Amino acid sequence: MKVLISKKTGIFYYLNENLNSDFHCKEGFIKKEDLLSNKKILISNTNREFLFFKANYYDFVKKYKRGPQIITEKDLGYIIARSGISKDSFVVEAGSGSGAGTIFFARFVNKVHSYELKEENIKIVQKNLDFVNLDNVILKNANLKDFIEKEEENIDLLFLDMPNPDEVLNKNLSKVKKGGFIVCYLPSIFQVQKITKIISLREDLYLEEISEINLRLWRVWEKVCRPEFKKEIDHSAFLVFIRCV
Amino acid sequence: MKVLISKKTGIFYYLNENLNSDFHCKEGFIKKEDLLSNKKILISNTNREFLFFKANYYDFVKKYKRGPQIITEKDLGYIIARSGISKDSFVVEAGSGSGAGTIFFARFVNKVHSYELKEENIKIVQKNLDFVNLDNVILKNANLKDFIEKEEENIDLLFLDMPNPDEVLNKNLSKVKKGGFIVCYLPSIFQVQKITKIISLREDLYLEEISEINLRLWRVWEKVCRPEFKKEIDHSAFLVFIRCV
Amino acid sequence: MKVLISKKTGIFYYLNENLNSDFHCKEGFIKKEDLLSNKKILISNTNREFLFFKANYYDFVKKYKRGPQIITEKDLGYIIARSGISKDSFVVEAGSGSGAGTIFFARFVNKVHSYELKEENIKIVQKNLDFVNLDNVILKNANLKDFIEKEEENIDLLFLDMPNPDEVLNKNLSKVKKGGFIVCYLPSIFQVQKITKIISLREDLYLEEISEINLRLWRVWEKVCRPEFKKEIDHSAFLVFIRCV
Amino acid sequence: MKVLISKKTGIFYYLNENLNSDFHCKEGFIKKEDLLSNKKILISNTNREFLFFKANYYDFVKKYKRGPQIITEKDLGYIIARSGISKDSFVVEAGSGSGAGTIFFARFVNKVHSYELKEENIKIVQKNLDFVNLDNVILKNANLKDFIEKEEENIDLLFLDMPNPDEVLNKNLSKVKKGGFIVCYLPSIFQVQKITKIISLREDLYLEEISEINLRLWRVWEKVCRPEFKKEIDHSAFLVFIRCV
Repeated sequence: MKVLISKKTGIFYYLNENLNSDFHCKEGFIKKEDLLSNKKILISNTNREFLFFKANYYDFVKKYKRGPQIITEKDLGYIIARSGISKDSFVVEAGSGSGAGTIFFARFVNKVHSYELKEENIKIVQKNLDFVNLDNVILKNANLKDFIEKEEENIDLLFLDMPNPDEVLNKNLSKVKKGGFIVCYLPSIFQVQKITKIISLREDLYLEEISEINLRLWRVWEKVCRPEFKKEIDHSAFLVFIRCV
Repeated sequence: MKVLISKKTGIFYYLNENLNSDFHCKEGFIKKEDLLSNKKILISNTNREFLFFKANYYDFVKKYKRGPQIITEKDLGYIIARSGISKDSFVVEAGSGSGAGTIFFARFVNKVHSYELKEENIKIVQKNLDFVNLDNVILKNANLKDFIEKEEENIDLLFLDMPNPDEVLNKNLSKVKKGGFIVCYLPSIFQVQKITKIISLREDLYLEEISEINLRLWRVWEKVCRPEFKKEIDHSAFLVFIRCV
Repeated sequence: MKVLISKKTGIFYYLNENLNSDFHCKEGFIKKEDLLSNKKILISNTNREFLFFKANYYDFVKKYKRGPQIITEKDLGYIIARSGISKDSFVVEAGSGSGAGTIFFARFVNKVHSYELKEENIKIVQKNLDFVNLDNVILKNANLKDFIEKEEENIDLLFLDMPNPDEVLNKNLSKVKKGGFIVCYLPSIFQVQKITKIISLREDLYLEEISEINLRLWRVWEKVCRPEFKKEIDHSAFLVFIRCV
Repeated sequence: MKVLISKKTGIFYYLNENLNSDFHCKEGFIKKEDLLSNKKILISNTNREFLFFKANYYDFVKKYKRGPQIITEKDLGYIIARSGISKDSFVVEAGSGSGAGTIFFARFVNKVHSYELKEENIKIVQKNLDFVNLDNVILKNANLKDFIEKEEENIDLLFLDMPNPDEVLNKNLSKVKKGGFIVCYLPSIFQVQKITKIISLREDLYLEEISEINLRLWRVWEKVCRPEFKKEIDHSAFLVFIRCV
């Protein structure tokens, strides 16, 4: 995938790799020859400048982002930072959903097992993984609560993005490494309350942190410097960091 | 390194690996035999329960955290998430400082080159890298502005945690991959203003985002559910995401 | 003015006092007889319940709120709280703008002088003041910078909602009471920087606080408890509290 | 009461009105003659400059502020702004606590009735009211839940700063004006949940808003412009705005 950014409007355009025709958009068109060249800045027929480069993961995320149900970068970044994992780690997650978390974990860790109940979601996630060439994920069309006790040993991070994480938290969790983390992603604080009760009753779980991450965008021009109007990114979810022993 | 968490006080105690004596702390002591055992929960002579496990990176960060000058997990996590890098990436940073960023990038990416002017900092960072067994970092006791043009090709992320990033931003930046990011970490918004002028004058740089990440901690008990009092984590810095072409 | 709130949709409808016909809205209609009755809950022909009561200032604000340029309650409330004024106070403001601040100050203090350059704004503000029966405001179609030195004595609060408050801050400010406040309302932090320089050069001004007020809305139902999605209220302005002696 | 602000340290010193001796503080002393003069800027024996003026309500609040349990200006300001009251209004509150809310409402509205269970608090609040010369408050050493039905007519704002506002919300609330507000001040979101159930069952109450107000302090010097480190003001409480009909 290649990216064009219009310097005038700031709009991102995404192009498939096989560029065998001119690219048309509402700001004009760019010639096929330019798209096949090594130029960094392309000029449209309307004389607008476009930055031109190969997409990275961020562009992929941006293209596939849809609706508030997708886990945001601000949350995913904090989760891998705060849970102490690394590129050698083994992550188990449920559910896969649209695959935003799956792809994110696969980008940064060694191995991901991802559970998802809906078969159509599995297909979408697999397609996205193929598109970005990530082959370190096993997708499982199953309910994690029935399989957590049969998983592989030494899970570094168990990520629960599901309405009822208590169904998993009530199981034997010995497949999670001693010192490893379970992280729950919960939009409502009442869901947090529910699981804090379960955690407090278990000897092998320790509630380390309940937090939320907020992103504030700023606008800085020559003469203006202020938070963006009408662009504050909304509440996504509360994050619960549980230590396993 | 091993970690003990007191279930009563929530205090984290850190132990070196060679555990050849009892561990004493203000909450009592734990016998050497217990420290050498495989037990997950240890009981002190004062009958307190301690969770016991091998440290992961998070514990290391927590132990070495000193002062507000260390880049926080909330920021580092967002930086790697938002800049589209992955475990195959090549990161160049300046300065190394206390090594919090260095170790973080080394945890998640393939290769890190880190520049630092102060020789004593270099020694501290190297010691910390050895301690956590990370060998994918090259530390350079030099000013990045003098070496950015001679760096290796295909930098995925150039991370500038320095008071005057304009000194680097004024150089030839062709060693940064097309589509790669330069991220500046700037405590004051005036520093942001200064570099926005430079960016706007360069054809090969595009200002994608200026943002700040805020972390809010919550307390949820059986009957209480509110943001923590007196624990709101403070302003760290503004993040500037610049796209290179 | 009377208010109808639909219990089903939460929509507020505003009615003029002389209710000589049925009230029609997209949720149905309510009979003239009901509107003239003393009932607290009215039932529409579509069998929907509406709360029915006399408007107060908040309803007036809600009805006349238009665009981001109107000073919000969160800011106005903090300004009168933080500046130590009371219902006996004398407030001078510039500019009147749409009158949101003017009406707010007039609601709570003894006397308001409000300066505004645009004659059409003066007319709108006067009409709104008449509508809510506030007669303690004198509107002046003039530039405050030319009149601040000729104002009445003992101004308790001088409120500057203008792009260039430095034009006023460079004048003789002895008409502001010793211990009284000047509050500047500035969307951009660069405007704040500009005036901090002026303040630091004057013996009779003391910069007490620079702050911003953020409002976060919550949704609490039986089973859900979270910050509102897509309703975070945006940045309005930075507030600068300057003490005069 | 008079106020001295040290221009060097920013410390506020409070002086009683009868100034019959020199004023000593850790920054030096100021002569009695200067304190009795009309000077705006006083010079200490150590050659430091102090701004000198008569206290206003803000200074009083600042002097008497103690601990997190006092309702903050950011909340009080928003409450009177958002609830549509004015200087003609009648406010009933419970409990008086340390009187921060009582004095605030008394500053801005016509009449306040304040209920408080602890007799010693009543004495403190009365003393503070006398000190600031406010005589429009009636303090009642009683439980509001037993008296709300016998209160005077036409309450514009009923302010409940108590752990169990449900005890009042379960009563006949017809003494609150049609269109008037009940505002609950609740540190924990679970308390909010509890009362939302009661409100939803009553025909005469309408839940208009649940919100929290956050104050962020900024530091702007010549070369620095950033949010304050270590000064973020903490969570105080959630505000619940209930409309009565």
